[in-house]
Amino acid sequence: MTRMITEGSLHRAMPDFTIVLVEPRVEGNVGAIARSMANFGFSDLVLVNPCNLGDEAYRRAKHGRPLLEAASTVTELEEALKRADITVGTTGIATKREKAFHRQTLTPWELVPKVTSMDGRVAILLGREDYGLYNEELDSVDILVNIPCGPEYPVMNISHAATVILYELHKAAASINGERPREASGFEKERLLHALGELLTAINYPEHKRRRTTVMFRRLMGRAIPSKWEFYAFMGVLRGATKTIRRLSESPGRGPSS
Amino acid sequence: MTRMITEGSLHRAMPDFTIVLVEPRVEGNVGAIARSMANFGFSDLVLVNPCNLGDEAYRRAKHGRPLLEAASTVTELEEALKRADITVGTTGIATKREKAFHRQTLTPWELVPKVTSMDGRVAILLGREDYGLYNEELDSVDILVNIPCGPEYPVMNISHAATVILYELHKAAASINGERPREASGFEKERLLHALGELLTAINYPEHKRRRTTVMFRRLMGRAIPSKWEFYAFMGVLRGATKTIRRLSESPGRGPSS
Repeated sequence: MTRMITEGSLHRAMPDFTIVLVEPRVEGNVGAIARSMANFGFSDLVLVNPCNLGDEAYRRAKHGRPLLEAASTVTELEEALKRADITVGTTGIATKREKAFHRQTLTPWELVPKVTSMDGRVAILLGREDYGLYNEELDSVDILVNIPCGPEYPVMNISHAATVILYELHKAAASINGERPREASGFEKERLLHALGELLTAINYPEHKRRRTTVMFRRLMGRAIPSKWEFYAFMGVLRGATKTIRRLSESPGRGPSS
Repeated sequence: MTRMITEGSLHRAMPDFTIVLVEPRVEGNVGAIARSMANFGFSDLVLVNPCNLGDEAYRRAKHGRPLLEAASTVTELEEALKRADITVGTTGIATKREKAFHRQTLTPWELVPKVTSMDGRVAILLGREDYGLYNEELDSVDILVNIPCGPEYPVMNISHAATVILYELHKAAASINGERPREASGFEKERLLHALGELLTAINYPEHKRRRTTVMFRRLMGRAIPSKWEFYAFMGVLRGATKTIRRLSESPGRGPSS
């Protein structure tokens, strides 16, 4: 449904984008984001448990009103993400979180070449005005993005943050011309995570480390965005290791060569 | 007075910046711009014949309140520009004006290298919410900048436009500073590739595929650029798999749990 606004067929290689606002509490911000989406040629907006949208939201949306009216409202984040192949979470406190929770963030200008080179649908999540995205929400996304600010007051208004990201995406769309290779779909990504999970089980990976290692792996893949061939090669290694371990466990004494 | 926030003396090559709002009519926008200036480390704000600034302006400014309180108010644009060495005007309708009045606009990313390489003070003018800058005001500036939007609705909110420009200026300052998270060194990357090689050997990975799988892995890691923690977590998985296989091969029948 959402496409970067196309001028001729120049943008055909861009993915689709959905902007997901998670529990926005200030209706004016929702309206301002709708306006910014309209400015930069985006149209697919999903609201997760939003505040009520009244006159202020529509006043701030201006000519973004139609897309605000067309926005879907859902009660669960999962529902908002079900069409997404890649999910991008925004966070205002990159540095601290990186140290504390091993989260590595991309800048908007690092994000853009990664997501614009793929096919499919990219969901961009913006969190609550006061708390942003909760940790479990941040853990579930493929890519974390942070807009570098000065150290004294790095907490941006949510519609300003959305605008910066939409601006960078639009900038890239305006400069993209050629076809790009097709990248891993969400289905393939989940298969890769499943294959990792099976290997972790096979090697008796400590239960308390599993979650963060899985998150780490998801993030690595989110930043690298494997091509189809890379995906199959990587799957081959993970499955090869798991199969070797299972075979050795079940048929002791045969050794790794078969 | 205004400086990009300096960390050490790394930003000393940046000029000073003044943000000049010409006859802003919506106090919330003035507050939102003050917040964005605080986010990106700017502090010098001049208001030309502004609307009254009340609760809404200060509410939207949040921690940008001090710079809003310190803003100068003047009645003439000339007064606002008297300290400026270079003046930059923003316009939302680049194309028409460009054709009609031979005005060539720069994008924000074209603007940045031009102004950041200079010394002195740069004034960035943002016009009225409804009419922007008048023709005579546009005629008086040194550089015209336009933020490329989609063709359907290119008129941005004034605080969004300010944010995009401040973001681009800060980005330039940050890259002058080399403000990047720590990345995996070559040595660590080689250790990761070595660990992969050992796993490939352990699982009897076909010799003719080894080279391109290793290249694939190097490329994936090159694109993802693992953090130190991600590096160690990934090493743990690869080594864990290799060790499990070796142990099972050497002591058949013990199973994977130990």
